[in-house]
Amino acid sequence: MAVSGSDAAKSECLAIIGVGLIGGSVGLAARRSGRYGPILGVERNAEALEVAQAAGCIDAGGSNLAQVARQADIIVVCTSVNLIADIVIEAAQHCRPGTLITDVGSTKATIVDAVERGLAKERLFIGSHPLAGSERCGPQSARTDLFDGRLAVLTPTEQTSREALHRATQFWESLGARTWAMLPEDHDRCLATTSHLPHLVAAALAVSLPPVDPMFTATGFRDTTRLASGDPTLWTAILRQNALHVREALHEFRRRIDEFDSALRRDDAEALKQLLTEAKKVRDDLGN
Amino acid sequence: MAVSGSDAAKSECLAIIGVGLIGGSVGLAARRSGRYGPILGVERNAEALEVAQAAGCIDAGGSNLAQVARQADIIVVCTSVNLIADIVIEAAQHCRPGTLITDVGSTKATIVDAVERGLAKERLFIGSHPLAGSERCGPQSARTDLFDGRLAVLTPTEQTSREALHRATQFWESLGARTWAMLPEDHDRCLATTSHLPHLVAAALAVSLPPVDPMFTATGFRDTTRLASGDPTLWTAILRQNALHVREALHEFRRRIDEFDSALRRDDAEALKQLLTEAKKVRDDLGN
Repeated sequence: MAVSGSDAAKSECLAIIGVGLIGGSVGLAARRSGRYGPILGVERNAEALEVAQAAGCIDAGGSNLAQVARQADIIVVCTSVNLIADIVIEAAQHCRPGTLITDVGSTKATIVDAVERGLAKERLFIGSHPLAGSERCGPQSARTDLFDGRLAVLTPTEQTSREALHRATQFWESLGARTWAMLPEDHDRCLATTSHLPHLVAAALAVSLPPVDPMFTATGFRDTTRLASGDPTLWTAILRQNALHVREALHEFRRRIDEFDSALRRDDAEALKQLLTEAKKVRDDLGN
Repeated sequence: MAVSGSDAAKSECLAIIGVGLIGGSVGLAARRSGRYGPILGVERNAEALEVAQAAGCIDAGGSNLAQVARQADIIVVCTSVNLIADIVIEAAQHCRPGTLITDVGSTKATIVDAVERGLAKERLFIGSHPLAGSERCGPQSARTDLFDGRLAVLTPTEQTSREALHRATQFWESLGARTWAMLPEDHDRCLATTSHLPHLVAAALAVSLPPVDPMFTATGFRDTTRLASGDPTLWTAILRQNALHVREALHEFRRRIDEFDSALRRDDAEALKQLLTEAKKVRDDLGN
């Protein structure tokens, strides 16, 4: 009884706003940790809410943000990036002052700027971005191990309290992730090259194909275009929020594409081999 | 004894010229079929030859093309595309008139043209390209099931005999592949978009990355750039031989990249979403 009472005292109420692939996986991983309860979900899509509950991602949920925020010790906003800042600000109007609020958005500067303009300094907010995901979506694709060994980037600013950073670090580590802190702007510049540009390139490659029988596409084409299956609405919002850095990365990519084109036009075997050798080194260094 | 004698009579001597990933896998799949023996290899790289023999890809081998060609009922040339035509022509000088000669090159028009100019019409040659492979190389990566269910494209021309087409079809089907016949030029135009351009794009993406810690690269980046690990020498030869069609495909790809760039510059959510939706449809239609 004493142990159970102590456990209950330590258990924090977790509110997940948006129970798709990422939000659902946050719920599953949080449940596995044994540190959170109840785990609540807020979701406008009634069917997703039902699936998330049936899959054990959340204990209960509804569509009323205020009601859930009031009970929460930790709130994680897992919606499309264009909605996150407004939801954080609204949630803060209903939750207790000591509630930690964070998010999982793939962009950070726009979100963090908007939240810091709209939120009192003493509120416990910090931006997060766990580098995990899939071209799939919805709580039916949620996985308990989605964050295991993956990096969760935290983006503290001058306004972020040490408590928010500390608690968010503990939160992501309890879900299986490692954490890394960097400025929102640095995060966005980095992710433009490692995530947003590859998504754009995969999509451009897919749409540049003339109609072709799938039987002519081997695994190489499927790997290279896999990201193009991502949700168009979510990715439109991500690309728009990070347009400046994505266009910078795209500019550099086009410069390298032009080098290949020029080497092909000149039939320059040495130049081609040098580019391909450099590419192989970069890729091999990443491992599988 | 009668059965064994009958089996021995049906068994065809297979010569594999170049025992890397593809040549080694041809040997393993041919052995599984039980229709070929002995399976011989020709390879300048003594270590690769030894690995191929130890892995069961070939029964025996050496570096002397003439010696092996003389014994063969079927010769499959599995070298870099820039060497294939010369090897086919040389092998034809040593093998019997009834020996079928084919290849596995990722380009076809240049090879088939050169062979047809250099070879007597009555010789049994037909170009092949099994659409299977990997970014790995060497006989240590060979797989018995590499061709299972995959498409082997055959590229007969006006000069190709029905016997060559028939026997090459049987050969690839005995290795587990399905077959499809098309003109060398049509093959090259098709593969430029489904294989050669994706390779170039993956490589350009890899080299356009600023130095970045691998911890920031999630599975999406790894998938999109996986092809960049391919062998630079082999791919230099492939891209050069199909430069015209690759540059055409590249031109269309750049046009779509520019559409993304323009939509980002104008912050045009509708245009972005439309491009991403079109890309998702193309990719989803391919399956996993």
